[in-house]
Amino acid sequence: VRGRDLGIQVGLGRPGPQNAITDVAGVRVGFTTLVQGDGPLEVGKGPVRTGVTVIVPHEGNVWEEPLFAGAHRLNGNGELTGLEWIRESGMLMSLIGLTNTHSVGVVRDALVGIDAKERSDPGRPFWALPVAGETWDGVLNDVNGIHVRTEHVLAAYESASAGPVAEGNVGSGTGMICHEFKGGIGSASRLLDPASGGFTVGVLVQANHGRRERLAINGAPVGRALPVSEIPAPDLDEPGAGSIIVIVATDAPLLPGQCTRVAGRAAFGIARTGGVGEHWSGDLLLAFSTANRGMPASEMGARTPLTVSLEMLADSHINAVFDAVIEATEEAILNALLGAETMIGRDGLTAHAIDPDRLLAVLDRHAARVP
Amino acid sequence: VRGRDLGIQVGLGRPGPQNAITDVAGVRVGFTTLVQGDGPLEVGKGPVRTGVTVIVPHEGNVWEEPLFAGAHRLNGNGELTGLEWIRESGMLMSLIGLTNTHSVGVVRDALVGIDAKERSDPGRPFWALPVAGETWDGVLNDVNGIHVRTEHVLAAYESASAGPVAEGNVGSGTGMICHEFKGGIGSASRLLDPASGGFTVGVLVQANHGRRERLAINGAPVGRALPVSEIPAPDLDEPGAGSIIVIVATDAPLLPGQCTRVAGRAAFGIARTGGVGEHWSGDLLLAFSTANRGMPASEMGARTPLTVSLEMLADSHINAVFDAVIEATEEAILNALLGAETMIGRDGLTAHAIDPDRLLAVLDRHAARVP
Amino acid sequence: VRGRDLGIQVGLGRPGPQNAITDVAGVRVGFTTLVQGDGPLEVGKGPVRTGVTVIVPHEGNVWEEPLFAGAHRLNGNGELTGLEWIRESGMLMSLIGLTNTHSVGVVRDALVGIDAKERSDPGRPFWALPVAGETWDGVLNDVNGIHVRTEHVLAAYESASAGPVAEGNVGSGTGMICHEFKGGIGSASRLLDPASGGFTVGVLVQANHGRRERLAINGAPVGRALPVSEIPAPDLDEPGAGSIIVIVATDAPLLPGQCTRVAGRAAFGIARTGGVGEHWSGDLLLAFSTANRGMPASEMGARTPLTVSLEMLADSHINAVFDAVIEATEEAILNALLGAETMIGRDGLTAHAIDPDRLLAVLDRHAARVP
Amino acid sequence: VRGRDLGIQVGLGRPGPQNAITDVAGVRVGFTTLVQGDGPLEVGKGPVRTGVTVIVPHEGNVWEEPLFAGAHRLNGNGELTGLEWIRESGMLMSLIGLTNTHSVGVVRDALVGIDAKERSDPGRPFWALPVAGETWDGVLNDVNGIHVRTEHVLAAYESASAGPVAEGNVGSGTGMICHEFKGGIGSASRLLDPASGGFTVGVLVQANHGRRERLAINGAPVGRALPVSEIPAPDLDEPGAGSIIVIVATDAPLLPGQCTRVAGRAAFGIARTGGVGEHWSGDLLLAFSTANRGMPASEMGARTPLTVSLEMLADSHINAVFDAVIEATEEAILNALLGAETMIGRDGLTAHAIDPDRLLAVLDRHAARVP
Repeated sequence: VRGRDLGIQVGLGRPGPQNAITDVAGVRVGFTTLVQGDGPLEVGKGPVRTGVTVIVPHEGNVWEEPLFAGAHRLNGNGELTGLEWIRESGMLMSLIGLTNTHSVGVVRDALVGIDAKERSDPGRPFWALPVAGETWDGVLNDVNGIHVRTEHVLAAYESASAGPVAEGNVGSGTGMICHEFKGGIGSASRLLDPASGGFTVGVLVQANHGRRERLAINGAPVGRALPVSEIPAPDLDEPGAGSIIVIVATDAPLLPGQCTRVAGRAAFGIARTGGVGEHWSGDLLLAFSTANRGMPASEMGARTPLTVSLEMLADSHINAVFDAVIEATEEAILNALLGAETMIGRDGLTAHAIDPDRLLAVLDRHAARVP
Repeated sequence: VRGRDLGIQVGLGRPGPQNAITDVAGVRVGFTTLVQGDGPLEVGKGPVRTGVTVIVPHEGNVWEEPLFAGAHRLNGNGELTGLEWIRESGMLMSLIGLTNTHSVGVVRDALVGIDAKERSDPGRPFWALPVAGETWDGVLNDVNGIHVRTEHVLAAYESASAGPVAEGNVGSGTGMICHEFKGGIGSASRLLDPASGGFTVGVLVQANHGRRERLAINGAPVGRALPVSEIPAPDLDEPGAGSIIVIVATDAPLLPGQCTRVAGRAAFGIARTGGVGEHWSGDLLLAFSTANRGMPASEMGARTPLTVSLEMLADSHINAVFDAVIEATEEAILNALLGAETMIGRDGLTAHAIDPDRLLAVLDRHAARVP
Repeated sequence: VRGRDLGIQVGLGRPGPQNAITDVAGVRVGFTTLVQGDGPLEVGKGPVRTGVTVIVPHEGNVWEEPLFAGAHRLNGNGELTGLEWIRESGMLMSLIGLTNTHSVGVVRDALVGIDAKERSDPGRPFWALPVAGETWDGVLNDVNGIHVRTEHVLAAYESASAGPVAEGNVGSGTGMICHEFKGGIGSASRLLDPASGGFTVGVLVQANHGRRERLAINGAPVGRALPVSEIPAPDLDEPGAGSIIVIVATDAPLLPGQCTRVAGRAAFGIARTGGVGEHWSGDLLLAFSTANRGMPASEMGARTPLTVSLEMLADSHINAVFDAVIEATEEAILNALLGAETMIGRDGLTAHAIDPDRLLAVLDRHAARVP
Repeated sequence: VRGRDLGIQVGLGRPGPQNAITDVAGVRVGFTTLVQGDGPLEVGKGPVRTGVTVIVPHEGNVWEEPLFAGAHRLNGNGELTGLEWIRESGMLMSLIGLTNTHSVGVVRDALVGIDAKERSDPGRPFWALPVAGETWDGVLNDVNGIHVRTEHVLAAYESASAGPVAEGNVGSGTGMICHEFKGGIGSASRLLDPASGGFTVGVLVQANHGRRERLAINGAPVGRALPVSEIPAPDLDEPGAGSIIVIVATDAPLLPGQCTRVAGRAAFGIARTGGVGEHWSGDLLLAFSTANRGMPASEMGARTPLTVSLEMLADSHINAVFDAVIEATEEAILNALLGAETMIGRDGLTAHAIDPDRLLAVLDRHAARVP
């Protein structure tokens, strides 16, 4: 069940056909979900509640055909490899892999391996600076057991598809907790008006952040109405520990600096739903534009043409993209909550899914089902 | 009238005695308000709807006794001089002057003059990199008439006082417009719990930003309930043009990087009330800590001691400061709206104050008077 | 006399016809030089050793026809207004005014006035965020006397011309001191090879930085060979206090992020000549590209076209621009030193020009006249 | 052989007893060097010319007892994991692992494993954001064969020691190429004067950057005097592809922002020896201070004290640290070149070590053996 299925309308914009990041043409998403075992934690054995998500930015070989991109650090208690290169060059030249905190390395190196296999000229030396991110699922998952392996990254990549995006306890979202409810993967999209170019903006979140009492949906204080005294949270050391990763895709022709600004606007969606960028939260936001395909790889040597022709969205039209990202991020967080199911993890710790009926009751009490 | 007078409670925290930035010991605020003339714009004659605000960070000579500080650019269509030095050194060594966009220079140079007069050793060469910021009041004010003069800066400085902070159409807030209502200066504060150190966090905003339809108070969609079709906005070229400056003061012992993070959390308050960091908005946020007084000026030469002893708030306690800044920023924006009065400016353009009764009606419809 | 006149060849690249920033088509430079009085400092009377420099980025109305730009802070003990907007939008929409530290405001506001006069539609509201920078000439100049006035900014602007650029004690460089020699304005340029696009890279410095013993030209330890024991420096509180502003212009089609990277490479030229980004130095570096003219102003509203077509230099060719900026910055610093003449300022303080013959003797001792 | 052994004196400062990063008390360095096979490249088989370097920041458990740190991106074509957290918190809470580009992940995850083993309370959940960096050794090494394994990271860590630091073809420096000579690991240090606090500044570089013709030592144009026509370089696609990682340690009590500034000064040393921050270069610079030990981990919960007492180096004394870092970086690059030996790698590609006699001849021709 998703927000729209319940009649919850976030913001004023219009979602795309899938209401997902895959509404941006060429973007695909794949998952490997790892759930195994129950009971007391035995490091290396389980219980396992984790996985991998791979986002494929376009239909081509992204290692050799970059896209403009930009990133924003809302709070840096997290990891997203490859950011130095994105900041320097403004270019995304990698698949995007997501997983748990302690498996970033294996995912990162697995992406190097995929790059190596997909090179058009395998004999030519290359280097890869892949994009691999994480949030921490150690409440439910045997995070130190290192259950994510190279094959899981490959499987997620191979399964990547357009169309609907699975939400909640799937892929890298499997063991995640959001505002002390069960969280995970969520997605949403917006279609801009024709006057604003008719572009599509899609968002995917890995939502593992937030404190219960601050959760708000459409401005309604959902978290305070559904407190942990009624719907318990797993016994976390510290509420608000956790993180959210946001990936934004759009076919609007954004330059790198514009992508950076758009990534920053995803933070507004987090703020509006009650996130604070808590100290223990790794809130890293990445935006890329699928326009301006065909740029040469940032390759060594003079083999590339001297200059490249581009399209750029005029800045005077960028507010529409900002609005869309904010709304889609809010709705993706909502969808992550609604898509998730109650999960019992290691040591019997339980993360409860939000109850749609109780959510609707709160929204209705605040006349907040529609904006 | 302020939010609390209407029974509106923003967030869960407790305000200080003044519910203003002046609750932070030593912080003073002064204003010069310039209102003159009516009717058609004659550049250089008026109508004048502008002014100057000066914030004094502590009781001593701030030019020679710096404070730790940090800044955040939410959207950079604005000016706040002195930021390069604050970013480099992490130190605030200046009064903070606010005015309209086209008078930043005169305010900045007037602050140099104040520095020159206040030096303990007037014969010794020095340089000043003052902090002067702005938002644009050209809808109501003859902004190109350059009506702010050095004497107005001095008068604002000399009038600076602790105690209640005037709000709305005062000082640099005189001609400002916020979410297409009359805006201006607003302030609020929070007292942290003893377990969080009992520190005070104060916020002052110069609110000149936002689109009507996005304004939210305590999550209630106030702007959509009070549309421009009912309460007109001045005929702006573009709603959402404008800016917000946020100044955060605290006596929590923050290091420069912590100040930067706290400044960034003011953006969450802007986001929660419906700001988007619109393209034409200059949203610059500055935080300083009055703790760790007594540091030597970042002076030339080896005359200063080699090392300095400091206190630092442990990071594990910083979320309480984050929460406080977010709430105080939200409430300061609300207070800017409520403190303002309808103003007729140049060419008869009118910015309407928000009507408290209608505001309350919307809040009650959404059960949003208290969180 | 300039470096090339003495047979000093900095780096391997080829200068343009003027070996100056004006080799970039459309770029003009104008000066107002203020020299008046001698003897003891009387604040407000003199002696005056200061001025204004205005750089005009292109032949059109830069307020309405922006250029891509980027900036780098090498050390932030300085001011360059307008940077927040350049960082946010990647666009330069202003003349560039340079002056002394305590006159930044008047220059900044004077640029607002020029903008107001040059608007194609004077009735339409606008705002300006001008670019005004500084270095500190308080050793020689009555810097607190505030001798720079609006009319001096206008005069510098009106005098702006292509062709040779005056160097040393001119305009805003009048009272500057570089590596404890007399400094000031310097310029140089490089022409890229046809294989690298044949672009022009021009640099202008306002050189007021550095310690004597670290000055190096073409790697030769010039400062240690010409110590203050032989060629005295004015009795500064602290050698190395001071700043350098670098403005880089190019017709290479750089995107904003590429401009930022190029601005950063000017720092390499400073480093190679012995600058350290000393703590009291305000080393702010700005680069803009005159390519991609014709972009709409970052205007309010949907009046602009939705998208803009651009050219971008392929990243694989950017090293040639990096090399050119480094070399031109080095040579511009050399030219600032050689172009300056010994100046006696306030209180009889004297800044000695570097002696060309002694410089050449050092270079020859180190076989460093050519690289 | 090191620079000092040849009578080459870089700069004016005084090295520490080891002239290495290990002169900073508590800092240890360990290596695992992997050299195996010869002849044609067979991916997965070899030849292997790579390794791991581990830097241990202090004698305690760095995972639970952080140090202040800061980073600088000179050019971002590289990876250094953990930077988001260092930038956010200003704290280093990790060993520093260095390796080749395609093995960053395995090193990163191995550091997670070390953290897990070293926790004082193994039952308590934690997360790690380790610092793992790289430069690319694919000219000589079978970089896609992924020869670095977890055990190699552990071995490097276990071998970490104070005292002399091996240089050249060792650990992660094994397969590196610098200015088209054989490069690798280099180190140097400086002792500040008592008036500047007598602090120690140590630098370790992994030097894999630069073009031959730009290499300069003490300002002498070494690269142009020893061109590739005489001393060949491996047939690189593009000279200047490659990277340099710089790690700076000091016992000066630097705050995080001061660490960031100090890290930035390492760039000056790169610039002075002829680096350009080339487009294909990943030049990431990290500085940490071993002072202010005893800070609580940035842990969850209120278990930590509310505030922490610190010492801070007064800014007016920081130039001495800047000078030291610049000089030590220059000398560490020199030592990396001199410490390396000619290496034949995959496909018989050869990277020649610089010949000390020829180097000295060039230096003497330019009177550059001493500054």
